[in-house]
Amino acid sequence: MSTQDKPVGEILGRSVPRLEAREKVTGRAVYTDDMTLPGMLHGALLGSPHAHARILAYDTSRARAMPGVRAVLTAEDLPDHRIGAVIKDQPLLARGKVLYAGEPVAAVAAVDLETARRALRAIDIQYEPLPEVLDPEEALRPEAPVLHERREALARTPNAAAHIRLIEGEPDSVWTQCEVIVEDVFETPAQQHIYLEPCSTLASVDRDSGKVTVYTSTQSAFRAQAIIAEALGLPMSKVRVIVPRVGGGFGGKTESTNQPITVALAKAAGAPVKLTFSRTDDMVMMRSRHACRIHMRTGATRDGRILARQVKLHYDTGAYADDGPFVAGVGAWFARGPYRIPHFDIECWCVYTNRLRASAFRGFGNPQIHFASEVQIDRLAEKLGMDPIELRLRNALETGEKWIGGAPVESGTLKACLERAREASDWSRRRSARAATPGKRRGIGVAAVGHVSALLGSSATVRLNEDGTATVSTGAVDIGQGSDTALAQVAAAALGLSLEQINFTGPDTDGSPYDWCTGGTRTTFTVGRVLTQACAQIQQQLFEQASEMLERPEQELELRPGGIVGVKGRPEASVTFGAIAARALYFKGGPIIASSRWLFPAVPIDPQRTSAQGLSSMGNGYFVFGAQVVEVEVDELTGHVQVLEAWSVHDVGRVINPAAAEGQIHGGFVQGLGFALTEELVWKDGHLTNPSMSGYKVLGAPDVPVAIHPILLEHPHGEGPFGAKGVAEASLVGVAAAVSNAIRHATGAHVTRIPATAERVLRAWLDTAPSKDSHQTR
Amino acid sequence: MSTQDKPVGEILGRSVPRLEAREKVTGRAVYTDDMTLPGMLHGALLGSPHAHARILAYDTSRARAMPGVRAVLTAEDLPDHRIGAVIKDQPLLARGKVLYAGEPVAAVAAVDLETARRALRAIDIQYEPLPEVLDPEEALRPEAPVLHERREALARTPNAAAHIRLIEGEPDSVWTQCEVIVEDVFETPAQQHIYLEPCSTLASVDRDSGKVTVYTSTQSAFRAQAIIAEALGLPMSKVRVIVPRVGGGFGGKTESTNQPITVALAKAAGAPVKLTFSRTDDMVMMRSRHACRIHMRTGATRDGRILARQVKLHYDTGAYADDGPFVAGVGAWFARGPYRIPHFDIECWCVYTNRLRASAFRGFGNPQIHFASEVQIDRLAEKLGMDPIELRLRNALETGEKWIGGAPVESGTLKACLERAREASDWSRRRSARAATPGKRRGIGVAAVGHVSALLGSSATVRLNEDGTATVSTGAVDIGQGSDTALAQVAAAALGLSLEQINFTGPDTDGSPYDWCTGGTRTTFTVGRVLTQACAQIQQQLFEQASEMLERPEQELELRPGGIVGVKGRPEASVTFGAIAARALYFKGGPIIASSRWLFPAVPIDPQRTSAQGLSSMGNGYFVFGAQVVEVEVDELTGHVQVLEAWSVHDVGRVINPAAAEGQIHGGFVQGLGFALTEELVWKDGHLTNPSMSGYKVLGAPDVPVAIHPILLEHPHGEGPFGAKGVAEASLVGVAAAVSNAIRHATGAHVTRIPATAERVLRAWLDTAPSKDSHQTR
Repeated sequence: MSTQDKPVGEILGRSVPRLEAREKVTGRAVYTDDMTLPGMLHGALLGSPHAHARILAYDTSRARAMPGVRAVLTAEDLPDHRIGAVIKDQPLLARGKVLYAGEPVAAVAAVDLETARRALRAIDIQYEPLPEVLDPEEALRPEAPVLHERREALARTPNAAAHIRLIEGEPDSVWTQCEVIVEDVFETPAQQHIYLEPCSTLASVDRDSGKVTVYTSTQSAFRAQAIIAEALGLPMSKVRVIVPRVGGGFGGKTESTNQPITVALAKAAGAPVKLTFSRTDDMVMMRSRHACRIHMRTGATRDGRILARQVKLHYDTGAYADDGPFVAGVGAWFARGPYRIPHFDIECWCVYTNRLRASAFRGFGNPQIHFASEVQIDRLAEKLGMDPIELRLRNALETGEKWIGGAPVESGTLKACLERAREASDWSRRRSARAATPGKRRGIGVAAVGHVSALLGSSATVRLNEDGTATVSTGAVDIGQGSDTALAQVAAAALGLSLEQINFTGPDTDGSPYDWCTGGTRTTFTVGRVLTQACAQIQQQLFEQASEMLERPEQELELRPGGIVGVKGRPEASVTFGAIAARALYFKGGPIIASSRWLFPAVPIDPQRTSAQGLSSMGNGYFVFGAQVVEVEVDELTGHVQVLEAWSVHDVGRVINPAAAEGQIHGGFVQGLGFALTEELVWKDGHLTNPSMSGYKVLGAPDVPVAIHPILLEHPHGEGPFGAKGVAEASLVGVAAAVSNAIRHATGAHVTRIPATAERVLRAWLDTAPSKDSHQTR
Repeated sequence: MSTQDKPVGEILGRSVPRLEAREKVTGRAVYTDDMTLPGMLHGALLGSPHAHARILAYDTSRARAMPGVRAVLTAEDLPDHRIGAVIKDQPLLARGKVLYAGEPVAAVAAVDLETARRALRAIDIQYEPLPEVLDPEEALRPEAPVLHERREALARTPNAAAHIRLIEGEPDSVWTQCEVIVEDVFETPAQQHIYLEPCSTLASVDRDSGKVTVYTSTQSAFRAQAIIAEALGLPMSKVRVIVPRVGGGFGGKTESTNQPITVALAKAAGAPVKLTFSRTDDMVMMRSRHACRIHMRTGATRDGRILARQVKLHYDTGAYADDGPFVAGVGAWFARGPYRIPHFDIECWCVYTNRLRASAFRGFGNPQIHFASEVQIDRLAEKLGMDPIELRLRNALETGEKWIGGAPVESGTLKACLERAREASDWSRRRSARAATPGKRRGIGVAAVGHVSALLGSSATVRLNEDGTATVSTGAVDIGQGSDTALAQVAAAALGLSLEQINFTGPDTDGSPYDWCTGGTRTTFTVGRVLTQACAQIQQQLFEQASEMLERPEQELELRPGGIVGVKGRPEASVTFGAIAARALYFKGGPIIASSRWLFPAVPIDPQRTSAQGLSSMGNGYFVFGAQVVEVEVDELTGHVQVLEAWSVHDVGRVINPAAAEGQIHGGFVQGLGFALTEELVWKDGHLTNPSMSGYKVLGAPDVPVAIHPILLEHPHGEGPFGAKGVAEASLVGVAAAVSNAIRHATGAHVTRIPATAERVLRAWLDTAPSKDSHQTR
């Protein structure tokens, strides 16, 4: 049953307030750290003082003897189970070696946090420092110290967690045909997720059944369940994960590492344990975005046809692989950009270094490569003397064209996005007339955005209550983006119910059907899709009953708003869902319930098209497009960049909740601006120098442009719920490139390394050859 | 897919320990009253001092002004919503009138229970006493005081909550053909459920969303949800009910009356409220079994063919209908007994009186009518000079014969049960040779048992976890009978998993699929059935995947123990559920999940066969049969009856867990013995005189026979899971009749009123004409 035929009433496309808005603004929302259990202890972790060292000996006796200390764990107390979505490289607590400064080596549970922290200080560990490697290209050299020694037998480059090569056309010989070539080395930083709520887990173990119950801040109840089970050698049937409100994740709470150690503490202590990270521990111990170095060369004909691209990517995954190989895979897959480039050679390394582990982060490898690609497209336009938007339009992929590997572009709306951005930003006028504040230079820049939406599987269960209201369970975690509200709207629209009539239940592995994860711009698309499938089954059951009650064939029936099945064209002939539900419960058929399941079908790489190494399929989802424009002013004296105004155009297929979609774009844009301008973890001698909110600059209100214009285009996608596609990540992906391009436009400075701090902009301004288009002399 | 073809391995038919055995024996099991919430208040209810009175005025000002009192409610503070499964006659707190002594008229929430109770004493209510009616036959007289005044416009007998008439054959004229006729008036008591855990509810209301969360001791999370919503005018989408461990119910926790008032207190107080009844409040305020008076006449030919029966039943439903009309319907439906009686006239009244409301109670109307019917069959045998078992065998319904109304007896195993009871009890020897303890008389008695199993609808959801273990959700409440364990065994057997690999989740209306109620001997049958349906769907999904993985057609595949799909005849060819689940999650198909639903199909009464009034269908389930034999000694001096030994034979279709089934039989038998010998609520002037465990005699260990022999026959039922049928109620149904028949055999006393207290036995002994078969002179 197509969702586009539904009587969706007034519920879709409306900015209904978040279901949880009131509890959040009143402070009554319950996050994991707000919870307590009787007899609960507090956990804390001891971080390694070395970036790379062998652990020679532990002495935990003093800590264990301290009053109030209930459990002290090191790797010696735990089974040697290693976890990792792609490579099982990660122990719960460092085992044998430490691989980054801050890596958890010991854990304590005590009656209060103060005691737990005192106990950490009483733990003595003897280390033998080892040479460390902090740069991914150095880590690939034969003489580099090896982080994971058991990989030495497996690979010539044991520090490579992934190595991908994608080739189409004749990338070696094509360069001679290119009339214009640009080449750069780009660098993007280890940005940190800085979710408002640091990682927190509350675990208890039933002494009788052995069943583990975990409340935790995670992006996936089911990944957390799987990882806890795997890490501790439990069957998943003995692990329950419940997710209270979550204060952000952005990819950093995708894989679960703090959860199993909390469970291990609870088991050892024989009491519930809560482990909530301080901001500094969270920054030092958890995850960041992959820093990335990108060698890129792009060539085109004089008339603006891009012919060739060569890319070499080094994603620094830090001490453990985590989602790194996935991230690198997406990076490689997007290295051509959303353009028709017939010849390319993309090589991508995901490399271990003795730094904080890197992971999924909004955009998932794509912001890095988009930064390089979209800045280089501007450089090409500059050399060609073309308008940057015009060059992009000329090369943009369109519906039916193929992505790398052969996946079809089902809805090629990049051109529409670019055109809309050009029009909305008054591009031509601003590109030429750039009156600036005295002492500043003004410029405008653009970036195209291509991303994916869908990603992996989901399931949903819908049950009709006896009064005709519905209980909807999806397993999806709302990490703050508003998916609960959007999904409740989808269910309400699909069933013709009001939001009040929908009981949208929270994620709980005991009660919710499986959903993979909140990530990959997938929740609205994938979970929304299974939800409409389940609702269609419910409608079928309703119609079967109503057909007998109203004595009319099913095809003459229709859903009406408020939970009513009526006869088409006969307003007086109808039955309520409540009457149908009661009939089903007490007379015939049984409870009205439906479960549905879906998995984005993996698309194998077409070997006729693409020579691929290190990747066998591109099963990542459907393509979504956008275009982002920013206007900046650069301070002539300091190099400080202020974004004045921004336009972020996205094809969202169909808008479920405009305010929520626009909120996503605002949030993604500002997070992208942090990536572009200020956010960077900085290491010195293997130690993070700025693990605090004072040392790590997240944009505040004064740093954000007064106007960010979110612009939603609606080109319905046949596979999405009511045609909807996702937008969460796309809103971040192009920002850094657009900013860099605007800086170039304002000043001529060619910024290839972000964040574009004032110092870097000034230096680039000095270093870069004057651009033809910039007002150097003004 | 037939469940009988499954490789059920070692899991079915095994007495595996209860899943929750350890937490119960260690005292760690969490019941509602064990729970607390931050800021929680304590509730208490004020009972009416009158059996029937008009409420003239309330003064709650003193109570409201007391420190620590947070809410005081009377009907004036509540919406006028009345509840009731059949008749909406019941307000949350008495409104306008009180209809029984103890009826809740006011509710208080306070910071502690002491304060709450003090506040109750400070509430002044002015009453105008009204004439009361305490006998159901009197209540039907035209001049009787009317309890529910709005019924006066509806019926000539406004105190009748139900009136049923069932007629087959020619019951008026047939009596002339009867060569032997017996006629009696029987009386059965208002037995109380005496669940170990008094009613308890903990309710909280989310201030922001308005969603109500209720933890409560109930037999049905979903009935509780529906009733709370109805009583308070909420959509069910705003009500969540979670059921912790439950300490018994026996029918008394089927309908929910304490739950909505607790929610109303929580709403009024703006804080969570727990309302746990004291034993006395529970006895005075909640429910009992329907006291019943039965006029019965039965006639037979000289050769022992039972020809005719006339029955007039009066079920005393007390002040509110509750499940009374259902109970009375079952009573009428079983009034012919499990016998081939061609002519009958059954009239059944369910009548309001100013007593404690009566409700469902293990057996559901059937123990009352079985007492009368089975005692009268013995009287008939006596007059015919036949062995009582022989007479029953001669008239027992067999497979394919019809019940009243035309429902077929699908599995007519009554004869098998009777024959097995005769053999196991060494009936013939004991019936003739009855050497007794000096000063006592010994006798042996039998009763046939016919009951139903199935009853209303259920649904189940089964989800395969990523490691191949399964999460199983049913919504069924284990009230202590062990259904969680039995259902987990069913799921494990259906999937070929071990119990450790099954995560059997608890009832929670947010997370569980609908189940009607734990009652009516239905959980193993009905929930087990939907569970096997869902497991069959899971197996189908597993086989689809495995077929592609193993490259073999599905029909060549088989389940193997431990979560493995293999190729038949090829032990080496197999894949684990975990490998299949991972493939489904990450490669093709999506999460493995299935939901199923079923409703026992209602059987309309065949008007060609049965003239019926007050009942339109007999949709109660499939018939199950048993036979119960007891040997007693009666003290010549006191009339005290001691049961020495008992045999309880039941066709359970297929045994899931022998220890659990036998436990049900032990428990049901002893509860039946209380009904037979000691348990009776006694009123004086409309007031209950014995609402305490010292005044109301529940059997203790010394009162119970040393040996109760549960005997399980296995005649698989095609509709049940692996052939299983229920046994919970049947084990109680025949006990009182068997005891009365044994007393007659021992002493000649014809006990027609139970409980058969020593005084009543002595009186009957004196009153009754000597029986030919009794040893009066010994």
